[in-house]
Amino acid sequence: MSQYSSKWIKVSEPAPHVLHIELARGPVNAFCKEFWVAYGKVFDTIVEDGYDVRAAVLSSSFPKIFTAGLDLNDAAAMGNNGTETVTDNARTSLATRKMLLAFQNCIGAPERAPFPVIVALHGHVIGLGVDIIGACDIRYAAANTSFAIKEVDIGLAPDIGSLAFLPKITGNHSLLRELTYTARAFSAMEADKLGLVSKVVPGGRDEVVHEALELAKFIAAKSPIAVTGSKHLITHARDHSVAENLLYTSAWNSAALLTNDISTLLKANAKKKKPNFAPLSVQTALSKL
Amino acid sequence: MSQYSSKWIKVSEPAPHVLHIELARGPVNAFCKEFWVAYGKVFDTIVEDGYDVRAAVLSSSFPKIFTAGLDLNDAAAMGNNGTETVTDNARTSLATRKMLLAFQNCIGAPERAPFPVIVALHGHVIGLGVDIIGACDIRYAAANTSFAIKEVDIGLAPDIGSLAFLPKITGNHSLLRELTYTARAFSAMEADKLGLVSKVVPGGRDEVVHEALELAKFIAAKSPIAVTGSKHLITHARDHSVAENLLYTSAWNSAALLTNDISTLLKANAKKKKPNFAPLSVQTALSKL
Amino acid sequence: MSQYSSKWIKVSEPAPHVLHIELARGPVNAFCKEFWVAYGKVFDTIVEDGYDVRAAVLSSSFPKIFTAGLDLNDAAAMGNNGTETVTDNARTSLATRKMLLAFQNCIGAPERAPFPVIVALHGHVIGLGVDIIGACDIRYAAANTSFAIKEVDIGLAPDIGSLAFLPKITGNHSLLRELTYTARAFSAMEADKLGLVSKVVPGGRDEVVHEALELAKFIAAKSPIAVTGSKHLITHARDHSVAENLLYTSAWNSAALLTNDISTLLKANAKKKKPNFAPLSVQTALSKL
Amino acid sequence: MSQYSSKWIKVSEPAPHVLHIELARGPVNAFCKEFWVAYGKVFDTIVEDGYDVRAAVLSSSFPKIFTAGLDLNDAAAMGNNGTETVTDNARTSLATRKMLLAFQNCIGAPERAPFPVIVALHGHVIGLGVDIIGACDIRYAAANTSFAIKEVDIGLAPDIGSLAFLPKITGNHSLLRELTYTARAFSAMEADKLGLVSKVVPGGRDEVVHEALELAKFIAAKSPIAVTGSKHLITHARDHSVAENLLYTSAWNSAALLTNDISTLLKANAKKKKPNFAPLSVQTALSKL
Amino acid sequence: MSQYSSKWIKVSEPAPHVLHIELARGPVNAFCKEFWVAYGKVFDTIVEDGYDVRAAVLSSSFPKIFTAGLDLNDAAAMGNNGTETVTDNARTSLATRKMLLAFQNCIGAPERAPFPVIVALHGHVIGLGVDIIGACDIRYAAANTSFAIKEVDIGLAPDIGSLAFLPKITGNHSLLRELTYTARAFSAMEADKLGLVSKVVPGGRDEVVHEALELAKFIAAKSPIAVTGSKHLITHARDHSVAENLLYTSAWNSAALLTNDISTLLKANAKKKKPNFAPLSVQTALSKL
Amino acid sequence: MSQYSSKWIKVSEPAPHVLHIELARGPVNAFCKEFWVAYGKVFDTIVEDGYDVRAAVLSSSFPKIFTAGLDLNDAAAMGNNGTETVTDNARTSLATRKMLLAFQNCIGAPERAPFPVIVALHGHVIGLGVDIIGACDIRYAAANTSFAIKEVDIGLAPDIGSLAFLPKITGNHSLLRELTYTARAFSAMEADKLGLVSKVVPGGRDEVVHEALELAKFIAAKSPIAVTGSKHLITHARDHSVAENLLYTSAWNSAALLTNDISTLLKANAKKKKPNFAPLSVQTALSKL
Repeated sequence: MSQYSSKWIKVSEPAPHVLHIELARGPVNAFCKEFWVAYGKVFDTIVEDGYDVRAAVLSSSFPKIFTAGLDLNDAAAMGNNGTETVTDNARTSLATRKMLLAFQNCIGAPERAPFPVIVALHGHVIGLGVDIIGACDIRYAAANTSFAIKEVDIGLAPDIGSLAFLPKITGNHSLLRELTYTARAFSAMEADKLGLVSKVVPGGRDEVVHEALELAKFIAAKSPIAVTGSKHLITHARDHSVAENLLYTSAWNSAALLTNDISTLLKANAKKKKPNFAPLSVQTALSKL
Repeated sequence: MSQYSSKWIKVSEPAPHVLHIELARGPVNAFCKEFWVAYGKVFDTIVEDGYDVRAAVLSSSFPKIFTAGLDLNDAAAMGNNGTETVTDNARTSLATRKMLLAFQNCIGAPERAPFPVIVALHGHVIGLGVDIIGACDIRYAAANTSFAIKEVDIGLAPDIGSLAFLPKITGNHSLLRELTYTARAFSAMEADKLGLVSKVVPGGRDEVVHEALELAKFIAAKSPIAVTGSKHLITHARDHSVAENLLYTSAWNSAALLTNDISTLLKANAKKKKPNFAPLSVQTALSKL
Repeated sequence: MSQYSSKWIKVSEPAPHVLHIELARGPVNAFCKEFWVAYGKVFDTIVEDGYDVRAAVLSSSFPKIFTAGLDLNDAAAMGNNGTETVTDNARTSLATRKMLLAFQNCIGAPERAPFPVIVALHGHVIGLGVDIIGACDIRYAAANTSFAIKEVDIGLAPDIGSLAFLPKITGNHSLLRELTYTARAFSAMEADKLGLVSKVVPGGRDEVVHEALELAKFIAAKSPIAVTGSKHLITHARDHSVAENLLYTSAWNSAALLTNDISTLLKANAKKKKPNFAPLSVQTALSKL
Repeated sequence: MSQYSSKWIKVSEPAPHVLHIELARGPVNAFCKEFWVAYGKVFDTIVEDGYDVRAAVLSSSFPKIFTAGLDLNDAAAMGNNGTETVTDNARTSLATRKMLLAFQNCIGAPERAPFPVIVALHGHVIGLGVDIIGACDIRYAAANTSFAIKEVDIGLAPDIGSLAFLPKITGNHSLLRELTYTARAFSAMEADKLGLVSKVVPGGRDEVVHEALELAKFIAAKSPIAVTGSKHLITHARDHSVAENLLYTSAWNSAALLTNDISTLLKANAKKKKPNFAPLSVQTALSKL
Repeated sequence: MSQYSSKWIKVSEPAPHVLHIELARGPVNAFCKEFWVAYGKVFDTIVEDGYDVRAAVLSSSFPKIFTAGLDLNDAAAMGNNGTETVTDNARTSLATRKMLLAFQNCIGAPERAPFPVIVALHGHVIGLGVDIIGACDIRYAAANTSFAIKEVDIGLAPDIGSLAFLPKITGNHSLLRELTYTARAFSAMEADKLGLVSKVVPGGRDEVVHEALELAKFIAAKSPIAVTGSKHLITHARDHSVAENLLYTSAWNSAALLTNDISTLLKANAKKKKPNFAPLSVQTALSKL
Repeated sequence: MSQYSSKWIKVSEPAPHVLHIELARGPVNAFCKEFWVAYGKVFDTIVEDGYDVRAAVLSSSFPKIFTAGLDLNDAAAMGNNGTETVTDNARTSLATRKMLLAFQNCIGAPERAPFPVIVALHGHVIGLGVDIIGACDIRYAAANTSFAIKEVDIGLAPDIGSLAFLPKITGNHSLLRELTYTARAFSAMEADKLGLVSKVVPGGRDEVVHEALELAKFIAAKSPIAVTGSKHLITHARDHSVAENLLYTSAWNSAALLTNDISTLLKANAKKKKPNFAPLSVQTALSKL
């Protein structure tokens, strides 16, 4: 697993099929362009390789901060597009749009992964930090977590995911708009009220990472076909009507129900043993496209 | 009303225009194919007949369990499609897809009914049980209710409705995904936090059924045109944008506002009497199509 | 600002760029057609004029009641379309539909405004009152607020916005349907549980208006480009998939990131001064279209 | 095959796996309710039974007329809903809507069938006749065919399919609107210009039925998995964006490509023999749901 | 009718219920802002007033030219937004966007009208001219018509309707893109091949206006309920899936089928007389909203 | 430009800003996986580099054949996924789906390019060839072109684009379905009738390539901002409703109208000179993401 680690991202496998991905760009995990590209790439590469991951935990390496958000010293990260010599605003806008699509694509990588990504939040989760967690499956927050949808305070609307994801995955638009327009800090308890996290863990980084890893291990023991299908179909349901989702589900599961995992489970249950599932990825040239 | 009862489903009319539909396939309301077909049929037949129902309560006959979900001894219910002699997987998939669509259609019957369906939950609500309640209008849970989105534990993604409905009718995607991927049990209190139920009733089956019937009687006294329109339009809103829903609503209510129920109500209010509404269904050959 | 006041609507500017809009049709803010037309017009005119508003608070002038909803003495407001001499129901339906679209358009005016609208709720919020607040950005409720989605009690399904907005901006469909079908009163606390409000303020009208104005002032100090973009994009996200919203956001922000507000903020922060932003509206004939 | 024939619908199998379905309600195939119910049922029953059909031709038994459209002597078919004793227009509208949905469902049956339906047009194709052909896959017209979207001439907008299908399956909205608003007759040549038919066959009923049957036989020799998938995916594409359709296609074909038909074809080609494909339907209790 | 005429737009009623609307801003019907606002307003006012129009013909007053498109001497019409003193590009973009939405809204007025609008094309139809005709129902072209989607030649993508409407109402995307990217002129015959017009009339303005008026008179004799419903439902179908349109149609026609026009027609047919239909608009305060 | 050429793909620049991309895998341009990956990459790389292309022509190097479609000797290209040792069909299906998405992504590359792609067709265009041309902007066919949607003849439904694009970009669904279900050859004239091509050029490869290059040069002289915006907005319109597209267009053009190209054109026109436009791509690190 260590082959996936890079300068600012540590990847370990604390239990079989369970990854721990740590953001580690000191001192505050500020995101310059190189960092967000690396962030997207670590997920995409693991998926591309077909490495047998069944659940992942994302956290920061630094107890006091998950991320400070954009690195304001990095031109590319600032919407200041570094094109001083260009004098045509329409062309600048096209370049900006291209950059935003690429940026969104990197931050959205966890959603594309076939395995669940559990984000363990602690300390400060600022600006881009909220975009990042929207694209993860499950959010656990340490009691000491302090969030802020900070973009308005640097003069822009959040554009990398917070406003795309949060209105659909939480349960109180009034609160979401208040937090967005004010850019004020909010606590783990308020995130809980918003419906943004599923658990507030007493303590800080160590405690929340521990809980998240326990959850990851629990999920990693399940049928990979069942878990990846569930992830894919919940994501589809978020973005489609009930009728559209049921139709899509019938096509998806018409293939997925051909799996051996069902009989594997029945046999293991009969013998009161733990089932042993094959990896999700078929290791062929085909799947490496 | 008893004419609608069948081997495993009891139908009674405890108050005028209020139905009580009880799942009664002992010992645990396990769903074989014959049971789910009967389940869909009881709703569809009542609607087809134009029987004057204004609210219905769905519960189990067995205090300890609402349903154990799929009957694992029933091939059709298991995704094991019982077609051992077929050797073409594509054809098997087509047959599976056809089965899933028919299954979804049965479980979705309460949504098609013109009257609200209140489900009174108690004891264990496992697997298919969660699909079932997603298609109901209102969910009350006894304090003793224990839920589980159990499908992952038999090797498949829920495909009959849980993942289609729940992301849109609750308020915490993080929790929903956690419950789906882990298949773990969760309590009535946690269902309440998720936004899945609107009331947790102290006690068990008797208490929650009592509360649900009281609610049903209260709704049954309202204008049927107003209630059925509200049901239809909330369902539409769940699956369409605000703009689309407002447009559709303008077409729908341009007919519905022609109703006499409005003047019936004004007159009854003026006289301080209870209004007396006509049945919703027009009893003609036409409406029996 | 007083130029925007009219017979039944008071408009003041208690702080720079912060409007207070008060509903003041005694005794109970019952909405006849003239009132709802005026309501829509006050927002649209302010926007049309490009008046430099950065946040607005909406409340009632009457401590005991926000609004009683439709004025039942007003034919146009009642679905009784006052066309006794017309005998063709299809033509009546067309006229009704036209009226509903115009009515929806008036009540939806706050959503079209480029600045956030915070509604301060207190006393009774009945029927149309709930439609009104759905189209606002942020909802604060005094502890004494009592809501009712009352339409079913006059024989109709809510058609001006409640059923279009609420299923998407709150987090518990079961509760929403219960409240709609029963038309029963519910408290500020229950509205909080539903996810309808972001704050319950102890006290009544004065307290909640105070809190809402404080919030408005806080928002009014932010970059107008950032706030208006956030409002626009959250609204878009509510009605589109994640992928559609991200695409739209990339087009929107490709222009918005050309703003000077970003550098204004950076410079102000460097000097530890309050930033001073230009008005949002460009004051030209063009923008007056 | 003759078991599917009924009073007004003749079903024969002129070649293996090729059905010929003839409308035979003399003198002019006017559609009363009983007729349209039978029409939908013949398709649905054949599909339900899993009868091994690979292509079907639909025509009239009467050389001079395909259909005169609705039977104006049949109350149910006329929008005159025969409910003279009912005095609440809203309830009448609900009953009408229910009838329309059932009617649309019957006429849409060919689209639900897994095999292509080729309609051979000849003589008069009036009103409902155009709704009927929109739901078929392929339209051949004899040179003597005369069409009319006649509904406007009886005071209503076409509501059973013409306006839903034709704007999407033809190529000239200006002409389509002209034909709809005027209800005027148009020839096979004009239908060709509109993009409504793919071939104009010189002659009348015998010639067009011959050509349609030749086409049906040609299609019936192809892989059933390939043909049914193509039908399903074109229909999906008509109603979804390119991106949505590509995604859906990837799920659909991930199962369909498991078929043996591919190797059957490769082997047959290698041996220069005709391939012999298995029936599409898996004959089990499951597929009979 | 003459009350609707204004400086640059002539409105006459050459036959009962048939309007002729002529663009008459010499010498070439160049569109400055005042002209396009007037254009939208003439349609909207007629509709607002409920004037009993059943079909309208749109043409130019000048035989040699339908319109030259945008008036390049008018700042507002040019995207040069006349805000030289503004230095914030984001604010300029917001003002431009607001202008574009208002412009689109004016040009889209014919689509909002409840009666069909037939555009009689002749001479040059340049740039905005093509946007204009896309929002009309039916397009007839004199043989001497010369079209050009000219916007690319002034440095912008068409944004008032051509690219929104034409891909959906014609039948050859390859040709449409070629015409758009090249901005080259194309003849009536090529417009016919594209599927943009339904008739090419030999001759020029007089001939095509004559034909269009004949068509308008023919349509004006039909049931207004049937024609307006057809227009509304075709427009809906263009923008929604078959399934969505059928559902919407069932709601729409559940009210429309209550019309007396059906029995009016049956009685008139029985007596071999021309039917006499009531105006579409109900003349009450309500419909004047 | 030659730097973009590779083993099987020749890239030249016959005129400034005009690319000619030739498929050159002898003898018949059969697509193995390596070939389709290279095909997608050539477009994506040119775009990534910001090379100043303003129009491109795609053709085959071989006069007699455009492409024979899939290389049936290549496992990956055949749906035979080369995973003999895998015994779980669900996992195989997942791998197949991943492959299909990657394959679609490669073939869809021309649509992602900011410049128009004109495909010059000649000789045989088989199977995948039709998928390829659907993703191009403009299709010219030599008179000798022979098409076939061949997939059904190898046992599968087309899944790389034909069925996603063609129902929306042509004008006769009946003909499209006939061609798809039969897999029969069709001529350039029939493609013209279908609305698939905008010009049939007498002759063969040389003639059609000449015409396509002339068109490309003509387009290359236009404003890049106008052309790329037009391409983007037509593509959006194909997949969205009129209302959605107009809204999106207003956001897009609010930035694009800031361009200098408009004044460049006005000045050039005034001086009767050819305008000289800046490249579309801003050459900064930002745009290279």
